[in-house]
Amino acid sequence: MGVRAAVAGASGYAGGEVLRILAGHPGFEIGTLTAGSNAGTELGAHQPHLRSLAGRTLAPTTPDALAGHDVVFLALPHGQSGPLAEKLGEDVLVVDCGADFRLADPADWTDFYGTPHAGTWPYGLPELPGQREALAGARRIAVPGCYPTAVTLALYPAFAAGLVEPDVVVVAASGTSGAGRSLKPHLLGSEVMGSVSAYGVGGVHRHTPEMIQNLSGVAGEPVTVSFTPTLAPMSRGILATCTAKTRPGVTLETLRDAYGLAYDGEPFVGLLPEGRWPATSMTLGANTALVQVAHDERAGRAVVVAAIDNLTKGTGGGAVQSANLALGLHEELGLTTIGVSP
Amino acid sequence: MGVRAAVAGASGYAGGEVLRILAGHPGFEIGTLTAGSNAGTELGAHQPHLRSLAGRTLAPTTPDALAGHDVVFLALPHGQSGPLAEKLGEDVLVVDCGADFRLADPADWTDFYGTPHAGTWPYGLPELPGQREALAGARRIAVPGCYPTAVTLALYPAFAAGLVEPDVVVVAASGTSGAGRSLKPHLLGSEVMGSVSAYGVGGVHRHTPEMIQNLSGVAGEPVTVSFTPTLAPMSRGILATCTAKTRPGVTLETLRDAYGLAYDGEPFVGLLPEGRWPATSMTLGANTALVQVAHDERAGRAVVVAAIDNLTKGTGGGAVQSANLALGLHEELGLTTIGVSP
Amino acid sequence: MGVRAAVAGASGYAGGEVLRILAGHPGFEIGTLTAGSNAGTELGAHQPHLRSLAGRTLAPTTPDALAGHDVVFLALPHGQSGPLAEKLGEDVLVVDCGADFRLADPADWTDFYGTPHAGTWPYGLPELPGQREALAGARRIAVPGCYPTAVTLALYPAFAAGLVEPDVVVVAASGTSGAGRSLKPHLLGSEVMGSVSAYGVGGVHRHTPEMIQNLSGVAGEPVTVSFTPTLAPMSRGILATCTAKTRPGVTLETLRDAYGLAYDGEPFVGLLPEGRWPATSMTLGANTALVQVAHDERAGRAVVVAAIDNLTKGTGGGAVQSANLALGLHEELGLTTIGVSP
Amino acid sequence: MGVRAAVAGASGYAGGEVLRILAGHPGFEIGTLTAGSNAGTELGAHQPHLRSLAGRTLAPTTPDALAGHDVVFLALPHGQSGPLAEKLGEDVLVVDCGADFRLADPADWTDFYGTPHAGTWPYGLPELPGQREALAGARRIAVPGCYPTAVTLALYPAFAAGLVEPDVVVVAASGTSGAGRSLKPHLLGSEVMGSVSAYGVGGVHRHTPEMIQNLSGVAGEPVTVSFTPTLAPMSRGILATCTAKTRPGVTLETLRDAYGLAYDGEPFVGLLPEGRWPATSMTLGANTALVQVAHDERAGRAVVVAAIDNLTKGTGGGAVQSANLALGLHEELGLTTIGVSP
Repeated sequence: MGVRAAVAGASGYAGGEVLRILAGHPGFEIGTLTAGSNAGTELGAHQPHLRSLAGRTLAPTTPDALAGHDVVFLALPHGQSGPLAEKLGEDVLVVDCGADFRLADPADWTDFYGTPHAGTWPYGLPELPGQREALAGARRIAVPGCYPTAVTLALYPAFAAGLVEPDVVVVAASGTSGAGRSLKPHLLGSEVMGSVSAYGVGGVHRHTPEMIQNLSGVAGEPVTVSFTPTLAPMSRGILATCTAKTRPGVTLETLRDAYGLAYDGEPFVGLLPEGRWPATSMTLGANTALVQVAHDERAGRAVVVAAIDNLTKGTGGGAVQSANLALGLHEELGLTTIGVSP
Repeated sequence: MGVRAAVAGASGYAGGEVLRILAGHPGFEIGTLTAGSNAGTELGAHQPHLRSLAGRTLAPTTPDALAGHDVVFLALPHGQSGPLAEKLGEDVLVVDCGADFRLADPADWTDFYGTPHAGTWPYGLPELPGQREALAGARRIAVPGCYPTAVTLALYPAFAAGLVEPDVVVVAASGTSGAGRSLKPHLLGSEVMGSVSAYGVGGVHRHTPEMIQNLSGVAGEPVTVSFTPTLAPMSRGILATCTAKTRPGVTLETLRDAYGLAYDGEPFVGLLPEGRWPATSMTLGANTALVQVAHDERAGRAVVVAAIDNLTKGTGGGAVQSANLALGLHEELGLTTIGVSP
Repeated sequence: MGVRAAVAGASGYAGGEVLRILAGHPGFEIGTLTAGSNAGTELGAHQPHLRSLAGRTLAPTTPDALAGHDVVFLALPHGQSGPLAEKLGEDVLVVDCGADFRLADPADWTDFYGTPHAGTWPYGLPELPGQREALAGARRIAVPGCYPTAVTLALYPAFAAGLVEPDVVVVAASGTSGAGRSLKPHLLGSEVMGSVSAYGVGGVHRHTPEMIQNLSGVAGEPVTVSFTPTLAPMSRGILATCTAKTRPGVTLETLRDAYGLAYDGEPFVGLLPEGRWPATSMTLGANTALVQVAHDERAGRAVVVAAIDNLTKGTGGGAVQSANLALGLHEELGLTTIGVSP
Repeated sequence: MGVRAAVAGASGYAGGEVLRILAGHPGFEIGTLTAGSNAGTELGAHQPHLRSLAGRTLAPTTPDALAGHDVVFLALPHGQSGPLAEKLGEDVLVVDCGADFRLADPADWTDFYGTPHAGTWPYGLPELPGQREALAGARRIAVPGCYPTAVTLALYPAFAAGLVEPDVVVVAASGTSGAGRSLKPHLLGSEVMGSVSAYGVGGVHRHTPEMIQNLSGVAGEPVTVSFTPTLAPMSRGILATCTAKTRPGVTLETLRDAYGLAYDGEPFVGLLPEGRWPATSMTLGANTALVQVAHDERAGRAVVVAAIDNLTKGTGGGAVQSANLALGLHEELGLTTIGVSP
């Protein structure tokens, strides 16, 4: 008898990915699926790849519809998770794939979202020092943003070991699914294919304060982050290129040692062998982050590249990984490290 | 203690897909991996997505290296499977992903391949009438070609029910992985992206006699097939559009009934609800074939469209499905019907 | 002093392509640009690739705004061209990129569009026998649909020479720009990339009667067309695979002779040398149709493949080619046969 | 009577792009085309998009074959341009699309290429201060690398105005055509599509010293460049994201003023209006660079994004632009600023 899980926002990309993983998870039983404007329609009309669930009818996203489950995954627009979570029992595990409860500092939230801060929940990145323990038994989890997942995994070992200066430049390419299923002209296939474009340039992307929060927490001092996201012609994947000045005496070996120390034994983060570099396709559909580090001696910089699937490790897989921990299941249950490639 | 499986040709796309599935299969234990020119290198250098196997060293493809396994999957160039299989024990299950043993008529083989015919093995398409039974206990299996898988599943129910004339036109789009990892200019990303092209036009594609064999077998009379493959800018997927004249009295209902009869209960073939049409992305990484049928009354034709992942249901997934049957395992073990999408 | 041209619907894909060509055309001067809901905004906000026109403000699409031009190109939704054209002077050349005036038989229009027929204008496919002459001096031109352009050029020589039976199967792949800039979920990049899908299956696509009209006209008898469009993961391009039974005695040589006869000297249609097959990328941004023919002796069929850029030869380039003829300019003026590749 | 031009390396991507532009250039007449291993074959077998030249036979790349032309464009592997150029007359304009003559400092060449330095030719980036004049009448031109073109145009105005610190981070995404038509597994369509990957990380990419040379020259002091190239799933295009710390008092207005000053009147560089960001598709097939700048106040950085078509402004278009200047033709002749989009 599995843990009974509901998914709110099941017709979107994030909700669909949570369902894709739950459908193959031996520890979960899939209960109610809800949607906003798609309520009343069949899941198969929106998520035709989820064959075994195609005939399920979507309920409206209400506390009543979501009641009676052990776990509720929320994949909703910003601002909707808080009011809903309040009406779900305190003993229900609520896993929020949205941004509402990720930030600790209300001022950060207000600066970037312009609305009142909903609160702060345990942060669902088990690879951060101490975080695996913090998630055990949790009943509220804020799933990290997709970009912050990649960037934090790329950089925290360097900060944990004190190897780099607290001034970071990140340029990341994302597949279009990161923008969700929103009907905007710049997300049309005709506009996206054959083109890489920049957006949210100049420090205005809403994932920026989350990166700063994570890295500053590890560094023990304020870290400055210059973050530029770009849109690449692929559906899934994030490749984050991250660089910071190295501190005196740091070498490639120092760097690799720090990353080895951080990631040896981590089930879902792989430090690649020297000479191999991450490609997003290596992680497609997998809960894997691949990391590689170089030392540019001329420029005096560590350059770290991380690849994830934004919907898997960056959203739905990360959500299930943390839910496993919260529920006392094996952390790896229902999750694969193997990508679909080529 | 699982069934012990070896994979010959592990550094290619077909071998990689077999391994991707085996790695998540609860009934198999992965033994020796072999390669041709890549022997001696690590699997991770060629298949970086297969994280848990990345450190395995590839052995040369020899009978000795493949000895001592319960199952050997062959993913080799044409002509290599026969000599190798002869040296593997008769009690070893040999599953050939290549073409060598698919055709029953030696003349077909010689016409299209120009070499002597190696023989005919049980055909690994369990959905064909009687074939599931034929595969139970088999020790040699010829995995169908990717195009014939899609086309046979698209058309056999119409022939089984006698609804269409034995003169078929098929135009299919394939992702580039169908051509394997061969270094040819027309397979370079720069040439492929943003472009659909035709190749093998005029009935010369080597998968044509296999389609004819399958459909004629079901129809009980010779079926003519005009087959045109095209190359689409995607890595995986086949979308086959198949059409034949309908016989008198045939309606959309007759057609849908025949497909419903054929596919109700089939775990890996889905007849879509009316109004929905297959897209290859719905099947990415899944052992699923999706089928839909229309009746064009003006043209007097049934039009059937099928989508598969050429590497999964069309190669590695089909191979494992048949191996499951041959070994007496549950047919669905280790296989998913759920695609990775979007 | 060039011919003064206005473009209605300048913020859409078809209008943008007309403008792209006009901007490099030595015989035209670009006048008023109009739009529907985008009226009042800058062209550069919608068509950032049209650098030299980026600062132009879009006027609303009204007869007044379009008055005072020698040529008006209409790139509007169905049903809007007729009322507008009535209010433009009879001496103004009106070139309609839409469907309203393509069909000769009002019943065809009503069957496929469900609204009253607007009328029939001279058909802008100069390669059809007699059509070049019919366009000279015309003041109303209906630009062919993109699919009918490819299919008619693929098949008419075979019909003109009486080499094939009047029963045709066409399966065509199109880039997503053929659907225009409409905000529909299935046109999002996330859905389109990595996927080929079928739509409008079973003879229901609105371009079907136009193909029948063209081919029947050349054949001198009714031609049946089974047409299946598919959507490919690319922005531009159509690859049409067309097949019909050959009549007795027809050989590859007969076929090639007929195509050579039809296309020798045609500036914008190229019969490829034997052994080479069209790819849509060869025609990107060019007013070129590339054609190749095979004879499948086993199946008794001619198989003809044609590639065009749906927006260029299939829309904007075809429009300018016909406008050149109507205005007495050199047919090739401002048009290139050279694609942008790779 | 046009200037007579030969192209060496006509079967590659760079040579093909030079030819695409020359074919539409009113001032040039296309003479001999040469190739290496493809000598003796028809151009159309390699460059089927170049319709009007398809029947040309490729000569071997020898001084004799290239003699008798006014201009010779070289699109050859590294190391071949020098010996060949020596045997072409001093009055012949030789335009080298390769790297051999770009670097001023022999040590830079040796560090990154490991062979003796061939020399230094006038640098074909007319937008650099004083460079337009330097190219007038030149008889040897080194065409800039594709990445350095984008990065230099992105950053030089900020350095010319003294607005940023001489320590730059660049992350750039390139289409696969930048790697040429080389048959390497990681350039296969199956590997490239749906994936962004990193390569040449850590300051080892050969275009790095060229960027440093250009920016240091403008800055008047040594500039450090951390450069990371990534490979994106598209054939053409570079999007370069470039950032440097701003000096005290610098604001967005200061930055925009500097870029306006640098690029007002530049025919091929466009500073976008505020709020719009470059996408590579806007420049497809055009000799255009699009630039936008932001000021990240929190991070204290200017972030500049530039988009070009790596084969056009980044190679063949840049080559023709400089050749126009050297020959006293109008700089814009035969070049368009309008991209092919969507």
